Amino acid sequence: METSPDTGVTSLTEHECWRLLETADVGRLALVIASEPEIFPINFVVDGHSLVFRTAEGTKLFGINASPRVALEADGYDAGSGEAWSVIAKGMAEQLEHFPDIYAAEELPLFPWQSGTKQWFVRIGHATLTGVRFPVAARGPRED
Amino acid sequence: METSPDTGVTSLTEHECWRLLETADVGRLALVIASEPEIFPINFVVDGHSLVFRTAEGTKLFGINASPRVALEADGYDAGSGEAWSVIAKGMAEQLEHFPDIYAAEELPLFPWQSGTKQWFVRIGHATLTGVRFPVAARGPRED
Repeated sequence: METSPDTGVTSLTEHECWRLLETADVGRLALVIASEPEIFPINFVVDGHSLVFRTAEGTKLFGINASPRVALEADGYDAGSGEAWSVIAKGMAEQLEHFPDIYAAEELPLFPWQSGTKQWFVRIGHATLTGVRFPVAARGPRED
Repeated sequence: METSPDTGVTSLTEHECWRLLETADVGRLALVIASEPEIFPINFVVDGHSLVFRTAEGTKLFGINASPRVALEADGYDAGSGEAWSVIAKGMAEQLEHFPDIYAAEELPLFPWQSGTKQWFVRIGHATLTGVRFPVAARGPRED
């Protein structure tokens, strides 16, 4: 950990990044599709040193198969300390296609916010994580 | 508005998308830099039919100037209704370079969470918005 005296921003260790990601239910997945940026909110879960989420057929799955490099961001706010954190994971996303992998993924505590059929699992393996935490300036996030 | 009977997902009108974005302080900006997806949490504000945020010199500003097409996502959860929403804005990001534009931007109620010098303003103009709201399935987001 290293804190900038100017901004109060602390760089997080990789271990801290994993620990924070484990506390998050929701992240936002950035992809490149046809050379353009796309972003999707997703529910995900940490499984070892990878991230797993479910998806239906659609733009997201098409995009991942065409261009598997992704960036996922999750963040949070600790009202107790007045600090926010943000972690970014980068890696290669891969749709699970083998039954043993799919069966294993089905055991993960993955609770999509949005119901509806999301029959495919995607794993972001060998993710590299970077993160920061910082005191929230001016005002905190809304509580709503 | 149109609600799917299968999933309870309601597509939002553009007007509703703008109204929800106005309630958000934090979004996540997806860019393409050197053909790869990048994602950054940002504080932004709605100004007319555009979105404005501040940034320091760095990867984000470099990326925007090299490849200005961006996607910004914001979301929220209404504990009262048990519904979450997510809005995605797509547009072209432009660093403000003319003094009248910069002076006008300095009047906007833009409160970066993270202190530190962010001397540049970026405007995402002519954004096209899409959004959904949906009942949160299985369990709600954490309150922390």
